[in-house]
Amino acid sequence: EFAKLDHHRLIRQGFAEVVFCQGKTVEQVQAIVQRLAEYNHSILATRASKEMYTAVKAVVADAEYHELARLITVERQKPPVDSERFILVMSAGTSDIPVAEEAAVTAEIMGNEVRRVYDVGVAGIHRLLDQRQLIEQANVLIVVAGMEGALASVVGGMAAKPVIAVPTSIGYGASFGGLAALLSMLNSCAAGIAVVNIDNGFGAGRLASIINQMR
Amino acid sequence: EFAKLDHHRLIRQGFAEVVFCQGKTVEQVQAIVQRLAEYNHSILATRASKEMYTAVKAVVADAEYHELARLITVERQKPPVDSERFILVMSAGTSDIPVAEEAAVTAEIMGNEVRRVYDVGVAGIHRLLDQRQLIEQANVLIVVAGMEGALASVVGGMAAKPVIAVPTSIGYGASFGGLAALLSMLNSCAAGIAVVNIDNGFGAGRLASIINQMR
Amino acid sequence: EFAKLDHHRLIRQGFAEVVFCQGKTVEQVQAIVQRLAEYNHSILATRASKEMYTAVKAVVADAEYHELARLITVERQKPPVDSERFILVMSAGTSDIPVAEEAAVTAEIMGNEVRRVYDVGVAGIHRLLDQRQLIEQANVLIVVAGMEGALASVVGGMAAKPVIAVPTSIGYGASFGGLAALLSMLNSCAAGIAVVNIDNGFGAGRLASIINQMR
Amino acid sequence: EFAKLDHHRLIRQGFAEVVFCQGKTVEQVQAIVQRLAEYNHSILATRASKEMYTAVKAVVADAEYHELARLITVERQKPPVDSERFILVMSAGTSDIPVAEEAAVTAEIMGNEVRRVYDVGVAGIHRLLDQRQLIEQANVLIVVAGMEGALASVVGGMAAKPVIAVPTSIGYGASFGGLAALLSMLNSCAAGIAVVNIDNGFGAGRLASIINQMR
Amino acid sequence: EFAKLDHHRLIRQGFAEVVFCQGKTVEQVQAIVQRLAEYNHSILATRASKEMYTAVKAVVADAEYHELARLITVERQKPPVDSERFILVMSAGTSDIPVAEEAAVTAEIMGNEVRRVYDVGVAGIHRLLDQRQLIEQANVLIVVAGMEGALASVVGGMAAKPVIAVPTSIGYGASFGGLAALLSMLNSCAAGIAVVNIDNGFGAGRLASIINQMR
Amino acid sequence: EFAKLDHHRLIRQGFAEVVFCQGKTVEQVQAIVQRLAEYNHSILATRASKEMYTAVKAVVADAEYHELARLITVERQKPPVDSERFILVMSAGTSDIPVAEEAAVTAEIMGNEVRRVYDVGVAGIHRLLDQRQLIEQANVLIVVAGMEGALASVVGGMAAKPVIAVPTSIGYGASFGGLAALLSMLNSCAAGIAVVNIDNGFGAGRLASIINQMR
Amino acid sequence: EFAKLDHHRLIRQGFAEVVFCQGKTVEQVQAIVQRLAEYNHSILATRASKEMYTAVKAVVADAEYHELARLITVERQKPPVDSERFILVMSAGTSDIPVAEEAAVTAEIMGNEVRRVYDVGVAGIHRLLDQRQLIEQANVLIVVAGMEGALASVVGGMAAKPVIAVPTSIGYGASFGGLAALLSMLNSCAAGIAVVNIDNGFGAGRLASIINQMR
Amino acid sequence: EFAKLDHHRLIRQGFAEVVFCQGKTVEQVQAIVQRLAEYNHSILATRASKEMYTAVKAVVADAEYHELARLITVERQKPPVDSERFILVMSAGTSDIPVAEEAAVTAEIMGNEVRRVYDVGVAGIHRLLDQRQLIEQANVLIVVAGMEGALASVVGGMAAKPVIAVPTSIGYGASFGGLAALLSMLNSCAAGIAVVNIDNGFGAGRLASIINQMR
Ligand SMILES: Nc1ncnc2c1ncn2[C@@H]1O[C@H](COP(=O)(O)O)[C@@H](O)[C@H]1O
Ligand SMILES: Nc1ncnc2c1ncn2[C@@H]1O[C@H](COP(=O)(O)O)[C@@H](O)[C@H]1O
Ligand SMILES: Nc1ncnc2c1ncn2[C@@H]1O[C@H](COP(=O)(O)O)[C@@H](O)[C@H]1O
Ligand SMILES: Nc1ncnc2c1ncn2[C@@H]1O[C@H](COP(=O)(O)O)[C@@H](O)[C@H]1O
Ligand SMILES: [Mg+2]
Ligand SMILES: [Mg+2]
Ligand SMILES: [Mg+2]
Ligand SMILES: [Mg+2]
Ligand SMILES: [Mg+2]
Ligand SMILES: [Mg+2]
Ligand SMILES: [Mg+2]
Ligand SMILES: [Mg+2]
Repeated sequence: EFAKLDHHRLIRQGFAEVVFCQGKTVEQVQAIVQRLAEYNHSILATRASKEMYTAVKAVVADAEYHELARLITVERQKPPVDSERFILVMSAGTSDIPVAEEAAVTAEIMGNEVRRVYDVGVAGIHRLLDQRQLIEQANVLIVVAGMEGALASVVGGMAAKPVIAVPTSIGYGASFGGLAALLSMLNSCAAGIAVVNIDNGFGAGRLASIINQMR
Repeated sequence: EFAKLDHHRLIRQGFAEVVFCQGKTVEQVQAIVQRLAEYNHSILATRASKEMYTAVKAVVADAEYHELARLITVERQKPPVDSERFILVMSAGTSDIPVAEEAAVTAEIMGNEVRRVYDVGVAGIHRLLDQRQLIEQANVLIVVAGMEGALASVVGGMAAKPVIAVPTSIGYGASFGGLAALLSMLNSCAAGIAVVNIDNGFGAGRLASIINQMR
Repeated sequence: EFAKLDHHRLIRQGFAEVVFCQGKTVEQVQAIVQRLAEYNHSILATRASKEMYTAVKAVVADAEYHELARLITVERQKPPVDSERFILVMSAGTSDIPVAEEAAVTAEIMGNEVRRVYDVGVAGIHRLLDQRQLIEQANVLIVVAGMEGALASVVGGMAAKPVIAVPTSIGYGASFGGLAALLSMLNSCAAGIAVVNIDNGFGAGRLASIINQMR
Repeated sequence: EFAKLDHHRLIRQGFAEVVFCQGKTVEQVQAIVQRLAEYNHSILATRASKEMYTAVKAVVADAEYHELARLITVERQKPPVDSERFILVMSAGTSDIPVAEEAAVTAEIMGNEVRRVYDVGVAGIHRLLDQRQLIEQANVLIVVAGMEGALASVVGGMAAKPVIAVPTSIGYGASFGGLAALLSMLNSCAAGIAVVNIDNGFGAGRLASIINQMR
Repeated sequence: EFAKLDHHRLIRQGFAEVVFCQGKTVEQVQAIVQRLAEYNHSILATRASKEMYTAVKAVVADAEYHELARLITVERQKPPVDSERFILVMSAGTSDIPVAEEAAVTAEIMGNEVRRVYDVGVAGIHRLLDQRQLIEQANVLIVVAGMEGALASVVGGMAAKPVIAVPTSIGYGASFGGLAALLSMLNSCAAGIAVVNIDNGFGAGRLASIINQMR
Repeated sequence: EFAKLDHHRLIRQGFAEVVFCQGKTVEQVQAIVQRLAEYNHSILATRASKEMYTAVKAVVADAEYHELARLITVERQKPPVDSERFILVMSAGTSDIPVAEEAAVTAEIMGNEVRRVYDVGVAGIHRLLDQRQLIEQANVLIVVAGMEGALASVVGGMAAKPVIAVPTSIGYGASFGGLAALLSMLNSCAAGIAVVNIDNGFGAGRLASIINQMR
Repeated sequence: EFAKLDHHRLIRQGFAEVVFCQGKTVEQVQAIVQRLAEYNHSILATRASKEMYTAVKAVVADAEYHELARLITVERQKPPVDSERFILVMSAGTSDIPVAEEAAVTAEIMGNEVRRVYDVGVAGIHRLLDQRQLIEQANVLIVVAGMEGALASVVGGMAAKPVIAVPTSIGYGASFGGLAALLSMLNSCAAGIAVVNIDNGFGAGRLASIINQMR
Repeated sequence: EFAKLDHHRLIRQGFAEVVFCQGKTVEQVQAIVQRLAEYNHSILATRASKEMYTAVKAVVADAEYHELARLITVERQKPPVDSERFILVMSAGTSDIPVAEEAAVTAEIMGNEVRRVYDVGVAGIHRLLDQRQLIEQANVLIVVAGMEGALASVVGGMAAKPVIAVPTSIGYGASFGGLAALLSMLNSCAAGIAVVNIDNGFGAGRLASIINQMR
């Protein structure tokens, strides 16, 4: 038995165990999703290759694939969504979109209204200032940025909302695989920014969902 | 003019600019707090030495000092507090208490009910399991831990609450000033943990406050 | 002569020299295993590719390949095994299984009873607590975990057994190829955990075997 | 209540909770040791300053201080010691003695026979070879070394004993506070070496004790 | 002879050799400045302690000390200054002022008009936008920032001026002595930012001076 | 809408937004360049693969590809060039030429006269000294070097010109992907060197252009 | 002109410029070797692929390829060799042979007698002690080792010969691409070991040759 | 017995064991030097504080202290010196002199003629070129440099002599305690440079002595 599924997680955490596909064989991913599909309405598998999706699709017919975000989802019963309280996912550049989409789709399958504003990096600050109203209306903000990750600080200073910062590995040289953006976000002069791992769109989406559904 | 106070911050962020005392002269800290005190009910200065406090006290008579947490506070009008929705601050060891207190006092001055559970590190997991009920009642969790920072992952798996993880620099050798705990928390297998900078109790308290006051 | 085989090692260390295949040519691995097979009952070659195995098989007909663990083994005469004293190999996730298997097979070929418990990461702590009895019965514990490696600390706090922690390179971003799990395990608040190199299932299996066979 | 003592630890782990004094105030250390002294025969506090010892001594009269090792011990009832099975603590240089002593005293207070061989670094390999007999008689080996930590590999190749390697921060420049010795030991070509944190004599002593007392 | 003064530097570089006082004895600094004072109108010594200044003052009566910036200057003949072409030195926080002053005083003694705008960090972006006109009038911009150093990116996007970014060691934890700000600035999404070493106000001032005096 | 083009940038910065192709799909690059081509005379896309170029060429017929430098350019109207004021691009080795060319072509398309001197590394210092006259005539210097990057310091000491240093990832082992050259350039004893990111020829060309066009 | 050959190097350094092939195109390598072959008897090109060799061979018919060492050599006139004074190249493992061969062939083409002793790592110290006589007879020692690189320290302590230590990238996990071996060698407790870059067999061979030819 | 003196070292290595004082108590240093003084003519103790010297002086009356270099020496019988073959010690800056002196005094006490040329850093390359003749006459070169350490590469390219490069911790910010200079020297484009640890003047002096005394 290679996997001890945490079936209790739906009760404890409000969502089934999410499958981390990296480092697993195609057969393992297929078997795990199949087993999860017996007990859950909604399933999420992250960092999934297309090949994994094909194998899953063969046994779970209603599985879907989000190519850019590398996610497999099964969604049999849409959770009720409060469309007034939305999560705003912002990205600094176009290259950060795959991670931003991982966050957005994660939040959606967990029952949240999500809006997207991409390519609003700080080198053209007016693009960001144009979104001021949307930022003020949002309930939770996810900021996805690579390179120097400065977008998180600027957004963090604009409103007293929970800001979840996701550093990405976009960049080269002294970006050291996203380290520059990560350190930048951890040291933000805007107080109270929540940071997740480099490229961890999933974690950001999950955290945003938890916060967004607080009452 | 060495400081451009951001007086607009109270309106934009719900709390006056917080003074970061490190790297400032005693005179600068004194002058900044004095100026802030003209416009604000509540003031917070972090990483303040006792000497700085003495200088501040001379010009702002109702300033208080939290020695362990190295905070100067001024609180002229208690904000209304919803005592049902509390923030739970947990620490793995006794040595992490200064950072935990920075978080707790920050959240308190920003108008939150705060409870504390200290010294519940994972090496004696029953101590943590004993607190299960309190964890379930809390609205937001702050987990403060040095060394390997494993407490965050275990707490993160116990309930679907926002968990804010604060790595501390407690440790030695390959802890590299808190790096071990930081990396540990960023890579947590418990999904959706929010991480702040090493020893950044203030940031955790601020973030918890924002989340706790969402409606 | 490209290799000076340490034929004395069987006497000195109780097991023949183990071949580290990485960085060697297929021909070198083939020749070394062939020579070892002339003098030893049991042979182990680690980090072996399938291609290397095929070449070895051609000259040592009873060689076997453990694909997941990337091990080549030859075992001509089973060593006597004390089945009462077993080594328990635990993994945090399914993705850590290849390293866990490297440890398990290594310990087995060196004459130990091995039991396996996989996928009991701390994010669902009840899965681990369910194994309490097995943990108490084991003689030596091997804990294999990637990401933040917190499993080692929790297991380390549960019983006064030798715990050998193996960090894996499973993870991404700020896991930095297993550095996060490594540092986490080195800084464990559970006293007396033995740490080996990242992904070094072999070393863990070897150390566990030495300890398990002490009288 | 700043400390939740893990009084259950004596039963679970065979020794009372060990106090990590770093980062604690003198008052906290004093209070913790005093409380532990009510329930336990043997107490150990690590990384204790002389000032902490003086405060402890005032309330626990039979406390002792090991200055080099920075340990406070209380030992009211010597545990029975099997003097046949001894732990051998070796150090590469004279400068590594404080860490070696932390290991040795820890193992002693936990009821083990300990022998010491100091200053046998590999640059004069004959000094080490002279100790061959002692190494073969020992039950568990602790190797304490700074700089490049090569001693662990040489000892590890000499006998099939559990070798616990303790890197120290002795060195300068590219030793990076013990990182060189740590990496060296983790990458040892001698299979099955157990590594603990830099300067963690305590952890090595504890691990050696657990292994040494296996039957 | 412990110092080979580069007396040719005034001709080759337009300014005498600048003394780097760190790591020198008080006597060495005194002797070097004294010798330089025989041949040059303007002298600059960086990272000078007060004690060094006192020793220099004893032999070069017109030496001055800039305490915050830790600079010793001698200025016997003001160079002609083009007050139309000014260098604007900006700092993100009050704590960055010592480095900013090192840059400003360096540029002044080399014959440039300098203006200062301090404490305009991005967490209160309006403070920066208020300075838009000054930024447009400046000839060269020096941006001094610690923590996450985001100010450089925002300023870099505002005008097509040479922007010299100086990361400072202000911060704590994962700022790693200024590394976070340094990496942030090197990875800026605003194209064409010039970066100098952490805390290197002197280098920034020198570079700004060279650019500002181009015709 | 995956990209918010910063059309205002031509006015604000004197050149259209430059496309960073890494991390974008071929379709995204194609669409972005096509849209930019509607409003701008000169376009630059960096880190572009040949496949991206082919897709762009299909929709923007006059696009050109610089294979070594991995640049796509469109240049419909040559900007006026002051051939007296030239930028000198120097490389330490032949292997550094791709990055040097990225800098050179960037500066050219932005309207600058560029001269190239390649393969003048410091191990044969006479090759560099032979170029003294050219160095003195240049207006701005770009120094591209991998390995230990020493060329920047030597050139920096030769003339009071703005020197822009570009570390490259050429090297192996302890070059750590260009880190050695980067640190070397940041710590240069030649005062006032401007450093850009590893392999960032584009940034260097852009900065040189801004400086070269100052009046 | 992409390469400024340093034809003066033969006179200044006693050997023609050595071509570093990494990062160069096949055409560049071909052209450089061809040009060097017009002026020199002996030519060396390092880190050359087989494809580069084929291209070189087409224009320099007597070029030879050392596949393991990845070297191209041309040797038209054997330099006189003093066979009494030999360089001993030792490797810790079989996997280190490619780097060891790079060193050995480099030293040979520069006119030295070279002897090889491979696979004498410290985990079986008797293999090394068996070579004591050869070590004493050698004039210069090159020690090539990956993993923890301990061989250098042991050899360094055995005789008062110049020892050149070459760390290799052989290893995995916390070897960090050879960093562990590099730091180990730099921190060797055996005084006076010369260290070169990771995998830099060429540099070691060159240095050994210079020392070996001193009179 | 805290120290096992390697009295055999004089025979094996040509010089008595050198005492590394860092991390030892004053009493230990005193006792070790005293014991060495019974058997040896020449003694060297490195990284010695003034306090250690005073203690040593009390028991070994002819001990001398080199304050800058932090060395204690005893020299009872000058070894014969070949003044034709000298070692040239060069430093880049005045601040590097303490390390340079450690190298120089070490080489002298081991029986070598030593000459010194200090403060010839590459930022004023003519200072270095002025020393060309001396460089050509020297038998072995030691180059001591902090900051970016470029001096080693330039000297390495000037003559076919053994060059021993000593990085120093002089610098700040991104020098990271000498790491920048160390990496720079390891990656030198001048082939065949020998590198020792940061600030390891002793190792450089020892290595130079061994090479210088080869025949
Ligand atoms: N020197 C030490 N190094 C590592 N861990 C230690 C050390 N001393 C005590 N500990 C562990 O630290 C924990 C106590 O932490 P605390 O509650 O902060 O006193 C216990 O689990 C001990 O096993
Ligand atoms: N992309 C991801 N990043 C981080 N954690 C994840 C990711 N996807 C799933 N997880 C977590 O990984 C755990 C599952 O690991 P495994 O048992 O190996 O499938 C679950 O606790 C998830 O919350
Ligand atoms: N494998 C190698 N490692 C380090 N340096 C080398 C290597 N091969 C050649 N070199 C040096 O690289 C320089 C040539 O670089 P390039 O001009 O790019 O061919 C010469 O100074 C050689 O001494
Ligand atoms: N604060 C500083 N940071 C970096 N370089 C400096 C600084 N001050 C002076 N320098 C440079 O250091 C060199 C002088 O070094 P030294 O000979 O040791 O005084 C000169 O080339 C200066 O340009
Ligand atoms: Mg964009
Ligand atoms: Mg505790
Ligand atoms: Mg799982
Ligand atoms: Mg010794
Ligand atoms: Mg401020
Ligand atoms: Mg070249
Ligand atoms: Mg071998
Ligand atoms: Mg100087």
